[in-house]
Amino acid sequence: MISKEFIKRLDQKYGITFKNIELLEEAFTHSSYANEHPDQARDYEKLEFLGDAVLELAISDYLYRHYPNLNEGELTRMRSNIVRTEGFSEFAIECGFQNEINLGKGEEKAGSRSRKTLLEDVFEAFNGALFLDQGLKAVQHFLHLTVYPLIDSGEFDDSRDYKTDLQELLQQNGPVNIEYTTISESQAPSHFVVELKVNGELQSQGEGHNKKAAEQQAAKAALTKLE
Amino acid sequence: MISKEFIKRLDQKYGITFKNIELLEEAFTHSSYANEHPDQARDYEKLEFLGDAVLELAISDYLYRHYPNLNEGELTRMRSNIVRTEGFSEFAIECGFQNEINLGKGEEKAGSRSRKTLLEDVFEAFNGALFLDQGLKAVQHFLHLTVYPLIDSGEFDDSRDYKTDLQELLQQNGPVNIEYTTISESQAPSHFVVELKVNGELQSQGEGHNKKAAEQQAAKAALTKLE
Repeated sequence: MISKEFIKRLDQKYGITFKNIELLEEAFTHSSYANEHPDQARDYEKLEFLGDAVLELAISDYLYRHYPNLNEGELTRMRSNIVRTEGFSEFAIECGFQNEINLGKGEEKAGSRSRKTLLEDVFEAFNGALFLDQGLKAVQHFLHLTVYPLIDSGEFDDSRDYKTDLQELLQQNGPVNIEYTTISESQAPSHFVVELKVNGELQSQGEGHNKKAAEQQAAKAALTKLE
Repeated sequence: MISKEFIKRLDQKYGITFKNIELLEEAFTHSSYANEHPDQARDYEKLEFLGDAVLELAISDYLYRHYPNLNEGELTRMRSNIVRTEGFSEFAIECGFQNEINLGKGEEKAGSRSRKTLLEDVFEAFNGALFLDQGLKAVQHFLHLTVYPLIDSGEFDDSRDYKTDLQELLQQNGPVNIEYTTISESQAPSHFVVELKVNGELQSQGEGHNKKAAEQQAAKAALTKLE
């Protein structure tokens, strides 16, 4: 059962109040739980089917409108980076979904509550439920508070590799020593801070959802100073 | 340039009037034409990127709501049958898109106006443009007049193979001669009528968008009589 705390949190943090609370319950019900309670519960798999397409469109629409300079190939690559990523599982955790999942006993014991693929599925199912309950605009509003800022951070934009560009720029006049060091790392939400030193001298810092993204941001910051 | 006849047809047949006619123009502009007219024209590729996701969601939503008895695996298979199909090119022809495409001279000579993949792309781009101009509901209304009826005809439902089922039923008591004959065939819109004879005796007829679908419908009709 969805907790009252979570319902309150959805409202306060994201402005979401479900009209049909059963959809929300379904979005958080794993098949293992539904199998144990066949008369009470439907699992989230059909909502996940729908949510997958909801996220695909909401993200495509965002990219189309906010990245007018990218061509079709770049947009497609960025979309598949976002949709394919395990990042959705991080959002599921950040949004407090993890504790609300209805799991069967065996899956609970096996630690499935922390399984990334399960958390991703729940994130998709939640967006499917929100779409059915309140339409595409409500999903887009929710993503403005969660996924879209991460897109704008450049996390999924592999159209420019800042680390390589920095290396090429710095090594024009001979070899240099470029060093990235993780100075801070936390989970749930996942957050990394990386320091970039060139020939032992601190150049910049970068933050990101994972180490690779934080390093790219550090390189980008150094490039901005140098260019 | 989009013809006045086509704009009138869109309105009369589908109730669609574009607010931003440039989007419609873009949806029908192939890159070969845009390359020849770099200052005037944008090609449809970015609208195709968006339209692909628009169709995916509109079709997922339709399947979710109208096929409550299908499980997630069946829904996913049906969705990919629909989205993967070359059927979109038939709709592009039926909707009169073919004559409106802005093509470069070389592609025109090469006969690209009739190429299925190009017609599919244009159908996707048109739905992307309609989504930007008028939102998801307008796309769904358009699909109610075009794609959804074809879904309901069973064309994409491979969950049951009626021809095989009929054969197995009829051959329980020894060999029989089952014969499908196409008795009528037309293009634009594509329509086939097939007659089914068992041991030379007429059993049923079937109609469909292609020969395979018409044969399945004939087998289904015969099964309904027998079962």
